[in-house]
Amino acid sequence: MHVGPSFSSYRIQLAGVSENTGFASPDFLDAMKYSLEGLLYTAGADDSYLPFILPGSGTVAMETVTSLIPSGSRTLLLTNGVFGDRWIPILTAHGFQMDVLSADPGNSVSMDDIEEKLEGGGYQNLIMTHVETSTGVRMDIEGVSKIAKKYADRIIVDGVASLGAEKEDIARLGITAIISASQKALGAPPGAALIVASRAALEDINEFSYFFNLKNWMTPMERYLEGKNGYLSTEPVGVILSLSRVFSDIRTIGLEARIDEHRRLTLALNEGIEAAGLRVLAKRELWSNTVTAVLSDHADEIVGRSMALGIEFATGVHPKLLGKYFRIGHMGYVNDFDALSALSVIERAAAQSGEKVSIGEGVKRAQQILYDLSHGK
Amino acid sequence: MHVGPSFSSYRIQLAGVSENTGFASPDFLDAMKYSLEGLLYTAGADDSYLPFILPGSGTVAMETVTSLIPSGSRTLLLTNGVFGDRWIPILTAHGFQMDVLSADPGNSVSMDDIEEKLEGGGYQNLIMTHVETSTGVRMDIEGVSKIAKKYADRIIVDGVASLGAEKEDIARLGITAIISASQKALGAPPGAALIVASRAALEDINEFSYFFNLKNWMTPMERYLEGKNGYLSTEPVGVILSLSRVFSDIRTIGLEARIDEHRRLTLALNEGIEAAGLRVLAKRELWSNTVTAVLSDHADEIVGRSMALGIEFATGVHPKLLGKYFRIGHMGYVNDFDALSALSVIERAAAQSGEKVSIGEGVKRAQQILYDLSHGK
Amino acid sequence: MHVGPSFSSYRIQLAGVSENTGFASPDFLDAMKYSLEGLLYTAGADDSYLPFILPGSGTVAMETVTSLIPSGSRTLLLTNGVFGDRWIPILTAHGFQMDVLSADPGNSVSMDDIEEKLEGGGYQNLIMTHVETSTGVRMDIEGVSKIAKKYADRIIVDGVASLGAEKEDIARLGITAIISASQKALGAPPGAALIVASRAALEDINEFSYFFNLKNWMTPMERYLEGKNGYLSTEPVGVILSLSRVFSDIRTIGLEARIDEHRRLTLALNEGIEAAGLRVLAKRELWSNTVTAVLSDHADEIVGRSMALGIEFATGVHPKLLGKYFRIGHMGYVNDFDALSALSVIERAAAQSGEKVSIGEGVKRAQQILYDLSHGK
Amino acid sequence: MHVGPSFSSYRIQLAGVSENTGFASPDFLDAMKYSLEGLLYTAGADDSYLPFILPGSGTVAMETVTSLIPSGSRTLLLTNGVFGDRWIPILTAHGFQMDVLSADPGNSVSMDDIEEKLEGGGYQNLIMTHVETSTGVRMDIEGVSKIAKKYADRIIVDGVASLGAEKEDIARLGITAIISASQKALGAPPGAALIVASRAALEDINEFSYFFNLKNWMTPMERYLEGKNGYLSTEPVGVILSLSRVFSDIRTIGLEARIDEHRRLTLALNEGIEAAGLRVLAKRELWSNTVTAVLSDHADEIVGRSMALGIEFATGVHPKLLGKYFRIGHMGYVNDFDALSALSVIERAAAQSGEKVSIGEGVKRAQQILYDLSHGK
Repeated sequence: MHVGPSFSSYRIQLAGVSENTGFASPDFLDAMKYSLEGLLYTAGADDSYLPFILPGSGTVAMETVTSLIPSGSRTLLLTNGVFGDRWIPILTAHGFQMDVLSADPGNSVSMDDIEEKLEGGGYQNLIMTHVETSTGVRMDIEGVSKIAKKYADRIIVDGVASLGAEKEDIARLGITAIISASQKALGAPPGAALIVASRAALEDINEFSYFFNLKNWMTPMERYLEGKNGYLSTEPVGVILSLSRVFSDIRTIGLEARIDEHRRLTLALNEGIEAAGLRVLAKRELWSNTVTAVLSDHADEIVGRSMALGIEFATGVHPKLLGKYFRIGHMGYVNDFDALSALSVIERAAAQSGEKVSIGEGVKRAQQILYDLSHGK
Repeated sequence: MHVGPSFSSYRIQLAGVSENTGFASPDFLDAMKYSLEGLLYTAGADDSYLPFILPGSGTVAMETVTSLIPSGSRTLLLTNGVFGDRWIPILTAHGFQMDVLSADPGNSVSMDDIEEKLEGGGYQNLIMTHVETSTGVRMDIEGVSKIAKKYADRIIVDGVASLGAEKEDIARLGITAIISASQKALGAPPGAALIVASRAALEDINEFSYFFNLKNWMTPMERYLEGKNGYLSTEPVGVILSLSRVFSDIRTIGLEARIDEHRRLTLALNEGIEAAGLRVLAKRELWSNTVTAVLSDHADEIVGRSMALGIEFATGVHPKLLGKYFRIGHMGYVNDFDALSALSVIERAAAQSGEKVSIGEGVKRAQQILYDLSHGK
Repeated sequence: MHVGPSFSSYRIQLAGVSENTGFASPDFLDAMKYSLEGLLYTAGADDSYLPFILPGSGTVAMETVTSLIPSGSRTLLLTNGVFGDRWIPILTAHGFQMDVLSADPGNSVSMDDIEEKLEGGGYQNLIMTHVETSTGVRMDIEGVSKIAKKYADRIIVDGVASLGAEKEDIARLGITAIISASQKALGAPPGAALIVASRAALEDINEFSYFFNLKNWMTPMERYLEGKNGYLSTEPVGVILSLSRVFSDIRTIGLEARIDEHRRLTLALNEGIEAAGLRVLAKRELWSNTVTAVLSDHADEIVGRSMALGIEFATGVHPKLLGKYFRIGHMGYVNDFDALSALSVIERAAAQSGEKVSIGEGVKRAQQILYDLSHGK
Repeated sequence: MHVGPSFSSYRIQLAGVSENTGFASPDFLDAMKYSLEGLLYTAGADDSYLPFILPGSGTVAMETVTSLIPSGSRTLLLTNGVFGDRWIPILTAHGFQMDVLSADPGNSVSMDDIEEKLEGGGYQNLIMTHVETSTGVRMDIEGVSKIAKKYADRIIVDGVASLGAEKEDIARLGITAIISASQKALGAPPGAALIVASRAALEDINEFSYFFNLKNWMTPMERYLEGKNGYLSTEPVGVILSLSRVFSDIRTIGLEARIDEHRRLTLALNEGIEAAGLRVLAKRELWSNTVTAVLSDHADEIVGRSMALGIEFATGVHPKLLGKYFRIGHMGYVNDFDALSALSVIERAAAQSGEKVSIGEGVKRAQQILYDLSHGK
């Protein structure tokens, strides 16, 4: 339950193992088309958007989507942590002008500050992170979008830790583009960078790179959507076979139901943590569906002991809290059993590390919530 | 036997399927360290080089390695086809000055032309492609390197279609950097970009990008080489587990033996093609160990019919010969049986398409060569 | 290409790998029902037959099916080799009276001898082997059945090496029961014993055993056919998941087409062997679709050298010809490429062993036949 | 967590997937030898015993091991439930004389009754079941063996549900033979019958069958132990590749540690069940390490609801308690997380079914025990 490559089920991994499937084979072309369509569906996009799947990672998606930003335009960046901050060197590398609004760890930039800044700033672009992987904080993208649309031409959302487990609804919210990666909330293996961008915004691309240039990728993706070979650079074939299985699962269960299920697990997990005697970093109203940061002075020891007990968590990376918290990823194919198992390990590892925890109270509380939320309580 | 994702054996693919291996887990860290070391070995590099494995593709490796090129320096690009030409938009995107020497399809830029151009040109950088995937032509990298070292500071080699099946020997030849990708000559699944670069050249990086910036990747890779977590952007975990198995196979069989075996298969395959009545595009002395382009006026039909017969080949992509040839990839885990199977399909598909071929003569010739070359004849 | 567990494709093997599928789970019950129905279809049975799938092997199926034989009845056994002879100790162990008609290796018991024996013998039961794995000889089951029906009450056929690759057609031929195993002509992994028996014959079971007693298995199988749990003894769950995939493939391609394809490969392989300079043991009109025995004084050495060259064949086991022949299994998921690969290895291994073979002539001849038989010649 | 095929981990299943491993291949022969040796080790046998691995199931092992019983000898059968009773029709089918001592469900035949019966009975053979799968009761095999050795020549133990998770120690206890199956306490996929028998007892085999005749299997097994091909009937190759991985795991963790771990999980699970408000069928001192039967008037409904919640349990099969209990298998690769997950599902399914359970109390109690028993409390 790391926050990076999330739990990737064997079933999904094995879907990527195939008998010599090349990138012009019907099986691959089917999977690519299905994944592009699934990406649109999961983002809440309509025909006015174009989906992109590139070899790479979330960072590749971030740098590629900046080709939507015109030179000379101004960007307001909202950041709630380390991965929000990552936009700074990316935009800087390409000479983009930018101002930054930051929040303390566990908190989110406020609506008032955003409106105030946008009002006076002459910004054409706004960038925000839906779920901040370094702190587990969820930004209110609906609220921010409403404000941003009044002032800016482009709203870009980092959905790396949210797409597939939080509601994106980009068409309704008027979001210009959202990015993600195969291995996070979606739960496929790592290897693919995902972007959904408004076709209107794609008309004017900033060509500062060959690969990070959405213009070069438009024809290939249009062709893949028609079921044709669309080579630009070699796609990670196995990852995409797995990804198409993920999108098939999302279609089967329904996006809403999948998001609700992640919410239910989040509540069970986070309340379990607090019942055990530890504290969640994020304010309750900012809890995300995919990442939980847990405060502890023994955080790094807890991560080490948890690995020995069978579950991999992630250490904290926020510079203001190094060694003071750890992170639980509950993305992709997590279920009730994973939530209970995580709590079981956390209680034990925390106790071993010297934290005052009530062994059993966390799993008990989680179990009660899991039960209650399945029975409409 | 496509030229893109090459034959990736089930064994290698299954090596990438694991029980929830995150990127801080011991299994991944072991595989990453082993792969980085294997990459150095396979490139013929020594301690004065640093290896890099990034999420991405060959194109990602190409654009990343250009961060070794200082702004204001001049580059001579040698290109024998479409993938050599791909350096042009990449270098252009970053404003690099460049001159280009091209060869006709099936041929290679000549040593005399190279020396003449370098002598008078004031070039600091030379870029060449070891094996040109669009034509199957192998460049004489030893010959070019000897000349280039006299004039240029940096020699960059595209080894995407060669690393693991051709001798690179970069330390001995004084090559500055070589790039490759997981899915080609190495035979792992696609998803990773590979670079080996001289530590001396890494001292001065051109920071035109965040991701395509080797400076940002140096510390992570140094840490991985020490067995420690080195996160910058999420690595394709499964691909790297598979890749480490490939490097283990290379260590077991020995790099020389693996290259010799690819040579043996190339001779059997190419002579088989000619015995059947078709013609190889590349001049005999330029035959590569990994890609064979075959001339035919029915090339696209042959590719379609071959797919129906069970083997995927690639259509031709050289603009001067569109529809006039097709390509066979014999990279990664090909063996005698694949060579015979490819010939069997080619003979049949070509005959069905109206080519005059002698059914059976190709497989017979190949079988004889396979036998003779196993018995020192 | 051993004659035992035949080529079992990765795809079929991976179909047997599942997330904790127990024997009351819907996935298993579906696979079991589908496999039982597929078994009926492949045997050419109708509703007057009941199918059985038991944990075990071909030998288990043999001993179990003898529970159809009443004590005190007389059996005529036709045997063309070692596996035909195996019925002798099985019947003897249970005190059955039996006479035996045998053929020399490579030959088949003659129709005249059978009729003569049946006419005067007062036999209630006749047992024959459709394809004799020790010699590759195919019995004319249609001819034998016609004669046998005139004299005997029960005809039992060993279809271990034939079911799925030869026409059984048991309802039309009036055959009482046929047995097989998962890993031979069907090409699933080993682990399941298969039986199809006439419901009429099942009314009177000889209860000499608990497990080898079809009476105990009838209710479980009837329940499985209705999609219900039918436990008697633990079924090999993974093998049956694989087996159901095999039957799905057979339905998709069609049984006739699958049999024709095995015939085509047999002709290519066997003629290739003779073109290379070796000789097939079985008389031409007795060639089976699944096993080819090849005569050579260097047979055991050829098998050893072939294993080193990458293909596993089987040594000869007929006591009259030990060390004088080897066997090729072409059951299950063999294709054109396997036939050519087998010939390539045989030519080389035979030459290395001192046989006079014409390297390349075998593969050439096979390739010509494969081509001709795909084009109606 | 069915009591039949137990949790078989993906890792173990994938160990059985291979590139065309035939039964004369080195990989199979290695796995077979290693498994036979592992079987001896896990049974606590020494050189005076011979191990057997046959295609089949536990029932196949039961019927095969009865070939150790001489005709005319007398057998005392101890049975604590349905699977103990299964010996009755098996022995009856072969005409063996037998007396039976039975216990009520949840109980075990008493030592006094056994001694009394043996004293006066003139029995040469005693058969007992170590763990009765229908009730979860563990027999005191040490106690019984001590008594039995005074009176009988042969002690046969059914270790189907115990071998690998309970201490067998057959050499020290003077047990003649133990049987098991691949898929139960060992946790490999189903498909193999396992027997360890004293070489002395093997000198006189009752040849009532061909396949169920240990005499026929002795030479093959001796050959396998020497690393040679030992064909009698086709072994389930994939199952044995998996099984050898299981034995490798047992060697790595140590048999004692593995048994202790199963004990720890049993205590957590069973006490958790009682803390939740349900009752374990077996008397506390008879709790087995592998099967727990739980009493409930809603047992069948609980099993159905649990399957929907994601875990497969088994319904009760004891004729005296049909519909009144269900069974949990905690064999093979179960761990702490499985114990908690099972309890989570049981609490919820029981509550849904109308049982009075305290949601969360079961998982809490289990978590406390898991923690305490890891810390020497």
